[in-house]
Amino acid sequence: MTQSAEAAAIARAIAAAKVIYVASHENPDGDAVGSLLGLRLVLASLGKTVHVALPHPVPARYAFLEGSASIRWDFPSSVPDLAIALDCDGPERLAHLRQAIEAAPLVADVDHHAGQAFGDLRYLDPTAPASVAQVYVIAGELGGILSPAAATCLYCGLMTDTGGFRFTNTTAAALHLAGQLVAAGADPAEIARRVFAERPLGAALLEGRALSSLRSVSDGRVLLGSITREDFQASGAEPEDTEGIIDAFRDVRGVEIAALLKETEPDVWQVSLRARDVDVRALAAQFGGGGHRLAAGCTMRGDLEQVAASVRKAAQQALREADASA
Amino acid sequence: MTQSAEAAAIARAIAAAKVIYVASHENPDGDAVGSLLGLRLVLASLGKTVHVALPHPVPARYAFLEGSASIRWDFPSSVPDLAIALDCDGPERLAHLRQAIEAAPLVADVDHHAGQAFGDLRYLDPTAPASVAQVYVIAGELGGILSPAAATCLYCGLMTDTGGFRFTNTTAAALHLAGQLVAAGADPAEIARRVFAERPLGAALLEGRALSSLRSVSDGRVLLGSITREDFQASGAEPEDTEGIIDAFRDVRGVEIAALLKETEPDVWQVSLRARDVDVRALAAQFGGGGHRLAAGCTMRGDLEQVAASVRKAAQQALREADASA
Repeated sequence: MTQSAEAAAIARAIAAAKVIYVASHENPDGDAVGSLLGLRLVLASLGKTVHVALPHPVPARYAFLEGSASIRWDFPSSVPDLAIALDCDGPERLAHLRQAIEAAPLVADVDHHAGQAFGDLRYLDPTAPASVAQVYVIAGELGGILSPAAATCLYCGLMTDTGGFRFTNTTAAALHLAGQLVAAGADPAEIARRVFAERPLGAALLEGRALSSLRSVSDGRVLLGSITREDFQASGAEPEDTEGIIDAFRDVRGVEIAALLKETEPDVWQVSLRARDVDVRALAAQFGGGGHRLAAGCTMRGDLEQVAASVRKAAQQALREADASA
Repeated sequence: MTQSAEAAAIARAIAAAKVIYVASHENPDGDAVGSLLGLRLVLASLGKTVHVALPHPVPARYAFLEGSASIRWDFPSSVPDLAIALDCDGPERLAHLRQAIEAAPLVADVDHHAGQAFGDLRYLDPTAPASVAQVYVIAGELGGILSPAAATCLYCGLMTDTGGFRFTNTTAAALHLAGQLVAAGADPAEIARRVFAERPLGAALLEGRALSSLRSVSDGRVLLGSITREDFQASGAEPEDTEGIIDAFRDVRGVEIAALLKETEPDVWQVSLRARDVDVRALAAQFGGGGHRLAAGCTMRGDLEQVAASVRKAAQQALREADASA
C-alpha cells in the first residue's frame, strides 16, 4: 500500500471503531505526547471513546497540552475495538502497555521511524518529520476540522522532534505543516515558551556548573564536561534537568566528540557521548554501552579523574582511527 | 498603495535601474545581512550592478552567507540609479551610509518595522515577519528563480528574526515562507548549525560562569547574574560572546525581571534588563539608561555588590508597583 492508502486504511478502521486505545513509547518525548493527545482530540471530536496511556509520566514541560491529565499508566482491562501505537520503533517501546495494545482485535502501528513494524495495519513513513505529521494526515482522511487544541498538540510534537526546526528532518513539508497548524490555531511563541523557556532555576545553575567544567583536548576536537553529585545538590536540580546539556557541548565550534559524565551514585558515572561524524556507539561499546552512531552512552565506575581519563583516551583513539580511514 | 502595489513599484524601479546600492542597519542582525545578501543575489541574477554596504562588520556567524565578503563599509563616490534601504526603522539606522543612500535619485525604504518611513518608494509591512519576507515578495514581482544561495540568505534572516521560530512573529505565513525557501534550496539544519551551533568554547565557558552566578530574589521573580572582567579573562571569551545570555536568564521559570551585569572596565557595569511584562525601560531610566519596555539597559559604576544591590532594589520596587497597578 502507498502511505496515503495506509493512512486511509487506518482512518477507515477508526471510523468503524467505537472504543479505541492509543499509546506511545516509554520515556515519552514531545512527539509521543503531542501525537497521542492530538489524536485523542481528533477521535473524541468524532464521538469515539478514547483511552490514552504512556509507559512513563508526561514530562512537566508537556503538561500544558490539552488532555495531558487524561493520560493513564495503563488501559482498562476490557478490550477495545482498535488499538493504535504511535511513534514506536518496535512494540517493545510500549513497555508494559504492549500486552494491552496487542490484545486488541485490530492493532495499528503509526510511526515515522525506519524500524520494526508490527500490528495489523501499518502506516510507516520515514520521510515524515514526526509522528504528529502522520496524525495530521489521518485527521485529514477522517475529515472534520482540527481544533486549536489539537493543532497545539501536533505543533508541539513537530517543533520538539525537529529540535525547534533545527534538525535534518526540518523539511519543506515540515515547515508547511507547521504553517498549517498555526493557521489552525497553534500559537508558536506560546508553545515554544512553554516547552523551551520555562526551565527551573536549578536547571540553569546546573548547566552553569556543567559548562564551567568543560575541558577540551586534541585541539578542541574532544570536549569533556562533568556533573557531580555535589553539582546536583548545590544547584537543587533534578536528574531530568540534565537534558540538553550534552547538546550544548556538541554545539561548541570544532567539537567532534563531546562527553558528559554524570555522577548518579558515588563513583558511578553515566556517560553521554555525542558526535558530529565519528562513531561514538563503538566508543561506548568499549565500556559496555550502546546507542546510535552519533549519540551513545555507557556507565562507568571510578573517581572523576579516572573515568575522564579513560573516556578522553578512548575518544582520542576514535579520532585517530577516523583520521586514518578518512 | 497596497503592500503588493508598493512591492511592485519597487520591482519596476529595480527593472529600470542599472546600478543599485543596497544598505541595511547598524549593528546588523541576521535579517539585515540576510535581506541585503539575498536581494544582492536576486539583483545580480538580473544583470544589475549591485553595491552592498553595512555600517558595521558582518557578525562572524553570518560570514558563511554567499556574498558576505562583498559587503563594504561605504559605497563608491559615484551616484547609483536606485538606492534601497532594508530593515531600517528610520534613516538614522543607516548611520554613516545615510548620506550615500539619500543622495541617490531614487530611494526605496523596505522595512517590516512600524517605524519612521523615508525615501521616494516605500514598502512598509509591519505584518511581515522579517524584511527577508519582503525581499521574497520583490523577487517574486521581478520573476525568475530564487537560487539556493539566495534562499539560504533569506531563510537565515527569517530564522534569526523569529528567534528560531519562537517569537510572536512566527506566523503561519512565516512558516509557509520558510517551507518555500527550503523547497528553493535552503538547508535549515545546516543554517541553524552555522548560526546557532558554532559558538567558541570561550562563549560556552563564559555562559557557564554567568549561569553559575545567578541569584534570585522576591521568590524567584527577580534574577540577577554577572560577568566580571575575571570571567572574561578566565574563559577567553570575547565581548560578543555575551549574546543570548540575558535571554537564558529571562527564560528561567517564574522570572519577571532578569538582569545581567557585565563589567566592561574596572567597576563599570553594563546592565542588561529583560522582562516578560514589567516595564524595565523605566527601571533603566532611573540609572540614566533606556531601551524598550521589555528589553532595556544602563551603565552603572561601583563594585559588584553595590551595583547588584541597586539593581535588585529597583527591580523589587518595579515589581511592587506592577503588583499595585495590577
